[in-house]
Amino acid sequence: MMSISVMRASGFSADSSHHLQINTPLVAEWLVQFLRDECTRRRGVTRAVLGLSGGVDSAVTAFLCARAFGPENVTALRMPYKVSSEDSLLHARLVVEQLGIQERTIEITAMVDGYLAQEPDASPARVGNICARARMTILFDQSAKLGALPIGTGNKTERLFGYFTWHADDSPPINPLGDLFKTQVWDLARELGVPDEIIAKPASADLIKGQTDEGDFGISYPKADRILAYLVAGWSASKLVKVGFDEAEVNLVARKVDSTHWKRRLPTVAMLSNSAIGEYYLRPVDY
Amino acid sequence: MMSISVMRASGFSADSSHHLQINTPLVAEWLVQFLRDECTRRRGVTRAVLGLSGGVDSAVTAFLCARAFGPENVTALRMPYKVSSEDSLLHARLVVEQLGIQERTIEITAMVDGYLAQEPDASPARVGNICARARMTILFDQSAKLGALPIGTGNKTERLFGYFTWHADDSPPINPLGDLFKTQVWDLARELGVPDEIIAKPASADLIKGQTDEGDFGISYPKADRILAYLVAGWSASKLVKVGFDEAEVNLVARKVDSTHWKRRLPTVAMLSNSAIGEYYLRPVDY
Repeated sequence: MMSISVMRASGFSADSSHHLQINTPLVAEWLVQFLRDECTRRRGVTRAVLGLSGGVDSAVTAFLCARAFGPENVTALRMPYKVSSEDSLLHARLVVEQLGIQERTIEITAMVDGYLAQEPDASPARVGNICARARMTILFDQSAKLGALPIGTGNKTERLFGYFTWHADDSPPINPLGDLFKTQVWDLARELGVPDEIIAKPASADLIKGQTDEGDFGISYPKADRILAYLVAGWSASKLVKVGFDEAEVNLVARKVDSTHWKRRLPTVAMLSNSAIGEYYLRPVDY
Repeated sequence: MMSISVMRASGFSADSSHHLQINTPLVAEWLVQFLRDECTRRRGVTRAVLGLSGGVDSAVTAFLCARAFGPENVTALRMPYKVSSEDSLLHARLVVEQLGIQERTIEITAMVDGYLAQEPDASPARVGNICARARMTILFDQSAKLGALPIGTGNKTERLFGYFTWHADDSPPINPLGDLFKTQVWDLARELGVPDEIIAKPASADLIKGQTDEGDFGISYPKADRILAYLVAGWSASKLVKVGFDEAEVNLVARKVDSTHWKRRLPTVAMLSNSAIGEYYLRPVDY
């Protein structure tokens, strides 16, 4: 693996975000190589398919895929539900047109409402999860149809926050952005030439009208990413407060991470043998 | 964890299956404790929900859940598609009546066909995967509605064969049977008092009419389990052939395991930092 200095180890500061600075051209190049290596060299697949929501994560992923595989080998799926915003579709179209990738729109409304007719009182959160899983189902099905690998778009901030639907957003076998914080994804988006209106708008899952990520979190992405970067580097919450971070913000972030470990793990399986899948450790064989 | 002698380590034999023998009363008791420990003690959840297909795996799981949580706290979902067999529904009903657990039938046809109307030429395999993911989606949604944990039903044979839909059958957070080979699940079913007709019928995913697992595999479960038990204990395929196993059968089983490692893993994420989720190894902290 290429050695990339993504975060500067020295230079602590509660106020600046320079420790989140990435070498954007180098990261872009490394991620293009990662996609080719994982898809083409290791799995023998030369085509990619992804869900294009209109947001910045999937836009960046589309740009990387177009560079890695060629636009003719990349299919972007737009999968609107009846409440999806017009802006989302418009922004997805901007990406498709700029890159010249393949595009298909598949409505999920009949699928989702085919179930919800039996659950008319489902809360917005439940509807959101059903939509996310319907999109996963379609992404994998189109993958089988097209002979293309599904590419994930989840970033490190939402993965650490558990801000995704389990077995949905986190399900594609290959994910180029999963070790980049949201603010780093924005930096990468500027480097790649993602349209400004996609970078400038507030991040939103677009599952509920008017919902924004930062409104759900109770903290902005720049603030959250600064705290997360220190937490994952081994700083304790109490130490961060001691050196000047806001206590309520640190606790909010730490709580989100600590309460969602299970979403970043495989399911728990009862062990009955010394050859439990993924658990037995006495043999150095990866089989 | 209790120490349970599931497989006898000594006494090699290509013909007998005694190394797959389990202490069924002890395994049953341990799995009941496992369910209580994982759900109630660790997660604070006293209710369970599972998909009841009419097959032996979900029947055994229902029996274990009824014992662990009490029948009034267990909900069995029957989720038929238009091609699901009458027998499946009948056998699911037998389990519900014998145990006195809660039951609900939710048709998935409108949901699945809501998508398939846009994909009229989908192959039976694609339809099967869509059905499996629709059931997963409903299982998690009902879990949210009921405040109950989704319990998985996958066994070790199908997990090692990769004979499941990724992010569907393998998705529930808690799985009691995942370290038991199929023939061991049958033994456990007899111990628990699962109705004979469920134990006796050929295993089938019931996604395609007339399909059986063993027909799909090209090998019977008893033969496959014997070979798998040695492979996972560290025997090489060539050594198994040398001591008397059928070469074609050994190769068939080994090939299935070797080609499906990815299905037993989390997705591949590009690493860009020394704090990549699930990858960084310099800190002994499970955060």
